Amino acid sequence: MQGMRWALAGGKGLRAFLVLESARLHGVAGDAAVDAAAAIEALHAYSLIHDDLPAMDDDDLRRGRPTVHVQWDEATAILAGDALQSLAFELLSAMDLPAAPRIALVGRLARAAGAAGMVRGQALDIAAETAPVPLTLDEIIELQTGKTGALFGWAASAGAVMAGADPAPLERYAAALGLAFQIADDVLDVEGDAGLAGKRLGKDAAAGKATFVSLLGLDAAKHRAAELVAEAQLALAPYGEDAAALREAAAYVVARDR
Amino acid sequence: MQGMRWALAGGKGLRAFLVLESARLHGVAGDAAVDAAAAIEALHAYSLIHDDLPAMDDDDLRRGRPTVHVQWDEATAILAGDALQSLAFELLSAMDLPAAPRIALVGRLARAAGAAGMVRGQALDIAAETAPVPLTLDEIIELQTGKTGALFGWAASAGAVMAGADPAPLERYAAALGLAFQIADDVLDVEGDAGLAGKRLGKDAAAGKATFVSLLGLDAAKHRAAELVAEAQLALAPYGEDAAALREAAAYVVARDR
Repeated sequence: MQGMRWALAGGKGLRAFLVLESARLHGVAGDAAVDAAAAIEALHAYSLIHDDLPAMDDDDLRRGRPTVHVQWDEATAILAGDALQSLAFELLSAMDLPAAPRIALVGRLARAAGAAGMVRGQALDIAAETAPVPLTLDEIIELQTGKTGALFGWAASAGAVMAGADPAPLERYAAALGLAFQIADDVLDVEGDAGLAGKRLGKDAAAGKATFVSLLGLDAAKHRAAELVAEAQLALAPYGEDAAALREAAAYVVARDR
Repeated sequence: MQGMRWALAGGKGLRAFLVLESARLHGVAGDAAVDAAAAIEALHAYSLIHDDLPAMDDDDLRRGRPTVHVQWDEATAILAGDALQSLAFELLSAMDLPAAPRIALVGRLARAAGAAGMVRGQALDIAAETAPVPLTLDEIIELQTGKTGALFGWAASAGAVMAGADPAPLERYAAALGLAFQIADDVLDVEGDAGLAGKRLGKDAAAGKATFVSLLGLDAAKHRAAELVAEAQLALAPYGEDAAALREAAAYVVARDR
C-alpha cells in the first residue's frame, strides 16, 4: 500500500539493531530475529506517520523526505500507519519459532505499543502542548518512558524472550538507553544540523515546550545523558564481552547527529 | 484512554456474537471466547473511529452519539483507534488457550485487518470518492470483501481455529453474510430511519457514490441480499441444528433497522 514502504525507508534502524543483537546474544536463529526486527521497525514507522499528522505534531519532513501525508494525503497516512501496525503483528505471528515465544512477543509488543505504553506517551505529549504550565522533569520522564522507552524495551529484550531467558538485564539497559536517546534528541533539537537530522529542528523551543534541555540546561542535560549511557552499559555486565556492540550503541545514541 | 470506551459502546456486537457462537459450536470454553469476542469488537471500533475522521469519511454521528473526533478532537481519535488496535492483539495474546491457537488467531486477525484486508478495502473506498468513473459491481464486491468481509470471516471462523477444526464452512458462511450485510447497509442508506440507525443516512446517494443499490436497483439489491442469506445458511449444513443461531443471524442482517 502507498506510504508503507516510503515510511520504512531511511531510518537509523536502531530498534532493529537492538533486536538483532539481543537475538544473537541468546543464540536465536537469524530468520526469526530478522522478522522480529522488521516487526519493530514497522511498528515504529506507523507511530512516526501518525505522530507527523497535522492533528498531532504536524511535521512535513521526516528522514530527509516529505512525510506521508505531505507526499500523498492524510487518509493515506492514517491508513498506511494502521496497516503497518497490523503488519508488525503479522510478522511476529509468522516467525520461525515455537508458538510460545511468538505469542509472548505479540503480547509484549501489544502492551508496549498501546494505551499503557507508546500511545500513552504520545497522548501525554499532545496534552502537554495545551497545558497551562510546562511539564516537570518527572512528567517528561514518564512521557518519554512511554513514547520511546516502551519500544526500546521490547526491542532490546526480544532475543531473551525468543530464547526463554530472563529479559530483566536488557530491560534495564533499554530503560537507560531510551532516556539517554531522548535527552540527546532534545540536545539535537537545539544544537543539531537539520540537513543531517532529516527533520525540522528547534520546534520544541519555538513552541515553548518543556524538554530535558529547557529544564536542566544544555550542559547538565548532556551530563545526565552520559550518566545514563554508563548505566545502560553497566546493565550489560551479565553478558560480558559478548555485549560489546550494545555498549557501543549506547555510546552512539548520545553522539549521533540525526 | 479517552475515546476508547466511548467507541466500544452501543454497537450491535454482531462480530462478537459470531465469535461466541462459533466458539460454542466447537466446544471452546467461555473465557477464551469472550476475550476473542472483545478483541474483534476492539478492532472494529478502531476501524470506525479512523473511518469517521475528517480526512476519511468525515462522519460526526456514530451509534447515536458524536464520533470521537467530535466529542474530543482528531488527535484523541487517531490515538484511541491506534490503542484499540493494539488492545485487540493484547487480548488475543492473553487468551486462556494453548499458544498455538492464540498465535493462529493473531496471524489471521493481522492479515484480515491489514493492507491485504480491511485497510485495503478502506483505501479502495477512499480512492473511489475521487475516481473519474463510479465503481463497477465487481469492484464494489472486492472493496466490501476487504472492508467488511475480512473481519466477518475472522469472527465466524474463530471458534474453529481455537478448537483446531476446519474453518472453511464458516468462512463460506461469513463471505456470503458479509456481502448480504453490506447490501443491507446500502438499502438502509436509502430507506432507513437515521434515528434508529444512529448515523447519518443518504450520504452515498448525495455523494454520487456507486453502491449495490445504485448499480442493481432497490428491488434487485434486496433480492440478491436474500439469495446471499440463503447461501450463508446453506454453508452451515455441516453443523446441523446446532447452528440455528447463526442461521437466524444471517436472516437478521438483512432485516435490521440499524
